[in-house]
Amino acid sequence: MDSKPQNVRQEPAVVTTVKDIREAVRRARGQGRTIGFVPTMGALHRGHVSLIEASTKDRHWTVVSIYVNPTQFGPNEDFAKYPRTFDADRDACRSAGAELIFVPQDPEIYPPGDQTRVIPGALAETMCGLSRPGHFVGVCTVVAKLFNIVQPDVAYFGRKDAQQALIIQRMVRDLHMPINIVLCPLIRERDGLAMSSRNTRLDTEQRAQALCLHKALCRGRDDLKSGETSTGRIIAAMRATAAEIAPAAVIDYLTIVDPQTLAPIVKPTGRVMIAGAVRVGDVRLIDNILVDLP
Amino acid sequence: MDSKPQNVRQEPAVVTTVKDIREAVRRARGQGRTIGFVPTMGALHRGHVSLIEASTKDRHWTVVSIYVNPTQFGPNEDFAKYPRTFDADRDACRSAGAELIFVPQDPEIYPPGDQTRVIPGALAETMCGLSRPGHFVGVCTVVAKLFNIVQPDVAYFGRKDAQQALIIQRMVRDLHMPINIVLCPLIRERDGLAMSSRNTRLDTEQRAQALCLHKALCRGRDDLKSGETSTGRIIAAMRATAAEIAPAAVIDYLTIVDPQTLAPIVKPTGRVMIAGAVRVGDVRLIDNILVDLP
Repeated sequence: MDSKPQNVRQEPAVVTTVKDIREAVRRARGQGRTIGFVPTMGALHRGHVSLIEASTKDRHWTVVSIYVNPTQFGPNEDFAKYPRTFDADRDACRSAGAELIFVPQDPEIYPPGDQTRVIPGALAETMCGLSRPGHFVGVCTVVAKLFNIVQPDVAYFGRKDAQQALIIQRMVRDLHMPINIVLCPLIRERDGLAMSSRNTRLDTEQRAQALCLHKALCRGRDDLKSGETSTGRIIAAMRATAAEIAPAAVIDYLTIVDPQTLAPIVKPTGRVMIAGAVRVGDVRLIDNILVDLP
Repeated sequence: MDSKPQNVRQEPAVVTTVKDIREAVRRARGQGRTIGFVPTMGALHRGHVSLIEASTKDRHWTVVSIYVNPTQFGPNEDFAKYPRTFDADRDACRSAGAELIFVPQDPEIYPPGDQTRVIPGALAETMCGLSRPGHFVGVCTVVAKLFNIVQPDVAYFGRKDAQQALIIQRMVRDLHMPINIVLCPLIRERDGLAMSSRNTRLDTEQRAQALCLHKALCRGRDDLKSGETSTGRIIAAMRATAAEIAPAAVIDYLTIVDPQTLAPIVKPTGRVMIAGAVRVGDVRLIDNILVDLP
């Protein structure tokens, strides 16, 4: 009797060149498959896995890209320290049912003489855009490149990076890219910390402090739900909550915004987004929650 | 007996929406056709016609877009005065064998809330880019949009707009757009004036003066061919030639550059480009010639 387990997932193919991925996608299309795409920077966690599973559940032939994009890191940011865990990532892609992993080197994405950039507009001029100048230019540019390389029918992004998701949806609409963007729920650790590849860079003490962000957002949600209407007072209470849990954490921003325009909200009503970014040590973390008000 | 002439061209379909053009392109692909694309701002002349004919000769199902793109005109430029001649354009498209004409309105190309832009790099920071700030951002953005809307296999551009052609080739390469760019020869009037939609805006006297640009480029070519090696002296002679023919014309630039990088050339050798821009009245004209040296 064959001792191999049933329903074992095939090892996904790993390709490194534009030529090879286009050929693989062309073959899949020739077999009548639609293409689902999950662009990542690797160090995959359950959030990423949920995106891959969303694509395979939608019955797409699923491509995962793993590429730590240098142009979306500022000169003083953590490009060099960003976690790289390829063997574990490949296992996660296989378990989640991905057919292909695209792992390009820099010159494949940024060919010699590269100089064209895709720049977002007003959506990038707030929140993370203020403290990470150029970040969303790097994001839009690399995502446009990857979209043109893979040419997927559908691409999956997580709602943890809410501003990124909005900017990419806007880019796709503005540039008329023939791609459907699907946003998937933010996935949290058991205690509420938003899943992030950067969480692995926290030591035990920092891991405890990191929870201050989620707790601050929850405080804002509770205040809104209990009828408080002054966003100024709510944000002050959120800051106090964060400071109490983690006095050493540096708050980049805590804000209450319109979930479509990211404009700050003065009179909260309908659906609002509470979002924030903090630095714990040299690790920058973001989080957000949506709240439905009467 | 049927009195209809043989080989009469079908009237090309005219569509105005992204939805309709995608449906038409999808049908053509379903019939095994490849797609050729000629983006224009209308006011078609023999230069444009040569691009459409190049596409039909390559046996592509050929789409011509006619769209005077507002974002590539500066606030003091001739957007309002740019010639619009749709009926004649349709006839020219039919004669040249185009299958479809795409004539979008602004909100179809720039949807409400539009804010994403495609920006070129160093190639746009010289020549026309210096006197038309933002022009090539508008060009790259609208061409990226049109490429994503039409999704052609091949797109045709004229060498009259040499800097534009280089920037678009660079954009396609940098963003990995799956499109082949074909550059076609510059087409001239009998006396040497480069074909341009803007030529129709010249009165009789201006039309005579406009020739100063071509004559200046020819002077530069002759000087290079005769062994002159100082580009400074050559450009001074070109300026004198232009001033002699048209004292009232305003020279924007006359330059000798590397045809791939547009970097000014000090020691001319191999293939060089002589390029220039002049204003005659309120009409801005450009031209260029390639010269092969030992």
